[in-house]
Amino acid sequence: MTYPIKYTLAESDIPTTWYNLAADLPDIAPILDPATLTPLGPRELGRSMAAPLVEQELSTEPEFEIPAEVRQLYAQYRPTPLYRARRLEKELGTPARIYYKYEGVAPTGSFKPNSALAQAYYNKQQGKTSLIAETGAGQWGSAIALAASFFGMTAQVFMVKVSYQQKPYRRALMEAFGATCVASPSVETEIGRRILAERPDHPGSLGVAKSEALEVAYANPEIGYTRGSALNHVCAHQTVIGQEAIRQLELAEDYPDIVVGCSGGGSNLAGLAFPFLRERLNGGRPVRLIAAEPASCPTLTRGRIAYDYADAGRMTPLFRMHTLGHGFVPPPVHAGGLRAHNIAPLISRCVEDGLMEAVALRQNECFEAGVLFARAEGILPAPESTHAIRATVDEALRCRERGESKAILFGLSGHGNFDLTAYDKYFSGALPDDALSDEDFEHGLSSIPELARA
Amino acid sequence: MTYPIKYTLAESDIPTTWYNLAADLPDIAPILDPATLTPLGPRELGRSMAAPLVEQELSTEPEFEIPAEVRQLYAQYRPTPLYRARRLEKELGTPARIYYKYEGVAPTGSFKPNSALAQAYYNKQQGKTSLIAETGAGQWGSAIALAASFFGMTAQVFMVKVSYQQKPYRRALMEAFGATCVASPSVETEIGRRILAERPDHPGSLGVAKSEALEVAYANPEIGYTRGSALNHVCAHQTVIGQEAIRQLELAEDYPDIVVGCSGGGSNLAGLAFPFLRERLNGGRPVRLIAAEPASCPTLTRGRIAYDYADAGRMTPLFRMHTLGHGFVPPPVHAGGLRAHNIAPLISRCVEDGLMEAVALRQNECFEAGVLFARAEGILPAPESTHAIRATVDEALRCRERGESKAILFGLSGHGNFDLTAYDKYFSGALPDDALSDEDFEHGLSSIPELARA
Repeated sequence: MTYPIKYTLAESDIPTTWYNLAADLPDIAPILDPATLTPLGPRELGRSMAAPLVEQELSTEPEFEIPAEVRQLYAQYRPTPLYRARRLEKELGTPARIYYKYEGVAPTGSFKPNSALAQAYYNKQQGKTSLIAETGAGQWGSAIALAASFFGMTAQVFMVKVSYQQKPYRRALMEAFGATCVASPSVETEIGRRILAERPDHPGSLGVAKSEALEVAYANPEIGYTRGSALNHVCAHQTVIGQEAIRQLELAEDYPDIVVGCSGGGSNLAGLAFPFLRERLNGGRPVRLIAAEPASCPTLTRGRIAYDYADAGRMTPLFRMHTLGHGFVPPPVHAGGLRAHNIAPLISRCVEDGLMEAVALRQNECFEAGVLFARAEGILPAPESTHAIRATVDEALRCRERGESKAILFGLSGHGNFDLTAYDKYFSGALPDDALSDEDFEHGLSSIPELARA
Repeated sequence: MTYPIKYTLAESDIPTTWYNLAADLPDIAPILDPATLTPLGPRELGRSMAAPLVEQELSTEPEFEIPAEVRQLYAQYRPTPLYRARRLEKELGTPARIYYKYEGVAPTGSFKPNSALAQAYYNKQQGKTSLIAETGAGQWGSAIALAASFFGMTAQVFMVKVSYQQKPYRRALMEAFGATCVASPSVETEIGRRILAERPDHPGSLGVAKSEALEVAYANPEIGYTRGSALNHVCAHQTVIGQEAIRQLELAEDYPDIVVGCSGGGSNLAGLAFPFLRERLNGGRPVRLIAAEPASCPTLTRGRIAYDYADAGRMTPLFRMHTLGHGFVPPPVHAGGLRAHNIAPLISRCVEDGLMEAVALRQNECFEAGVLFARAEGILPAPESTHAIRATVDEALRCRERGESKAILFGLSGHGNFDLTAYDKYFSGALPDDALSDEDFEHGLSSIPELARA
């Protein structure tokens, strides 16, 4: 080779533990019961969560051992490659060194299986025979379909109806892995039937899908409900990403000045950034962490820090976090994975404590960066990931202006092979830039529970 | 790890040469001029082929050095992983050891860039500023779009109209890489306009698309015409697959008794199998080579060995090979990449000489094996690749019956993420099994040129 571009680890380099940032931050805010505003303990959380996952969720231990069976399944696609984006650097004419950690090599094309496999394992261990989940764009749903298939379990996924209709490929992928995929709202649950009776053409929402999945899980003790993002244990499972990246950057004899991730529910960003933050918090080198979110769903940049529900239907407990209000309805944006009114409490806490910055980016500037990246690096990024690319490109161009040779690492959380209709729209100029109306923004904020405001 | 499942090589292990099987087979049949039936030399072939590629095409040297720039670009996705299919073995209850070489990690999801990058390099070296190609399902077209983008060239792809309409994702992928994709027949060429005048709703065919691409290339000296399969130099470029597999099986301390590949134009199969055949022909271990083709397009199992054109429009020279006749119209089958009336002359020769076997498989039994594989291994295979999987599963089940512990290696030539509508049809039972009618079969054979029959 003229120069190395890929840093490859062996199967034996797959991390043996998940890292829990809660261990390194004092005074983690408890999860509250909405009725009593008192902290929820293992018993209450255990209603819808396998006991080992509850333990991780409430833990302040720094590490959880990865079960051998999960680690073995990780080997189907991990360690994932870390790339030096030499061609992109050249294209930008920047002195910056750009690296990206590519999770799109995972079977379903995104980072989601890192937690889906773990949750499937613990649910099976607890005697569950089936998994259930809600999904928007379909990334979590397909990860759960895969994980269930690997563990010999069945799976049912409630998919937001408008995505179910617009993204038949994702639905078909879930079915190929053996899962049942249901358009939500559906006639299979009481809440679904109620909503359809009121409005037969309801397009569905993540909140409704989540309520349907929870209703089925509560009624069937053999079914385990799974969570795609936000919670502490989900963030911990994703830290295999950042842990591998640290090892790979050692091979490159480099260390990032800046780490960038796209930010929706927060677990992808957490997975990449937290292991670096751990080093920083424990005497390591300073590193800037940047959360890149859509301007149309500006949870970190314009949301409030408050106790709020994680779903529109108010079936979840209350979490202290940045929120746009559980009643917030984001404008349609093709980065479906980033359309969350709330964010992982641990990410929220990082921003609150000044450990992480956040930037809000418009859809078209993100696709522009995504296409630039695709043509330079040969990988079509997921629309979600283009936010991290845009923020990285902006930093790299700043380096060019200032003549600074910084090292920037970003998370390429998934590929865009299932999102080509969005690229089609971008090329035809039909992609709205999703200016968020003041009215919708205020409406969202007004839904934050008064009593519980932090 | 409890057991290894992936055998990973470093960038420095990317092969440094391409292997040319023509060196190890005596009396390679020449390519003939259809008018004079005399062998074509470098000057004639040079009309539509870059000089270094002509040289490779006619060469009987065993190795061509891979240019440093191509090897550097290979590093974007090579070496590709070799897997031991432990979970599939368990599912089948077979004592066989099953390995697969996975080319779906390439940027466009299939093995095609291995040759596209090489052809782009040589065309650029010869002063071409643009690449042109025809494409059916879109795999070659997207590989050319990618390669052109990497070399700073423009690209134009004529895509069979029915695929253009049915596979918008593939078209959008080409456009994302910056290529222009045109539905063929088009108004951009004389032949296209003539066909459309006769039949405005013509659905297109590979033969027509090839004629359009050639017409444009002949008229524009700055445009390089590219070939996705069949020719000797394309087969050689693909041998990086088998060469890496040999190294990886050394890591696994194993050697295959059987090597299986799906067979359409033949270059994927050649790429995997020829390096093993090289060892066998040069005193190495015996290895069975199996070509898995669709029963609906049974080139190797029911075709004749004869001199024939490579396209329906008779614009190519004559090649000696298995052929169903250039007038053969295969029934629609979702493994678009395997719908060729002819096959690589070198593959044909292997079958003729008894160095390789061929099996013909029905569509539904292939999808059945593909789904079994997807659920066990977590990778959704391309419909083309499911033929190799079916043949492998059949061999593995034979091993179970006989209690034989053979090592089987198959080529997983690409992923099926762009082919989910085909899986959808399979699940809904709507996939025809493409029984080839005697009439269509005989019609095809009757188009083989009389004079030139070998």
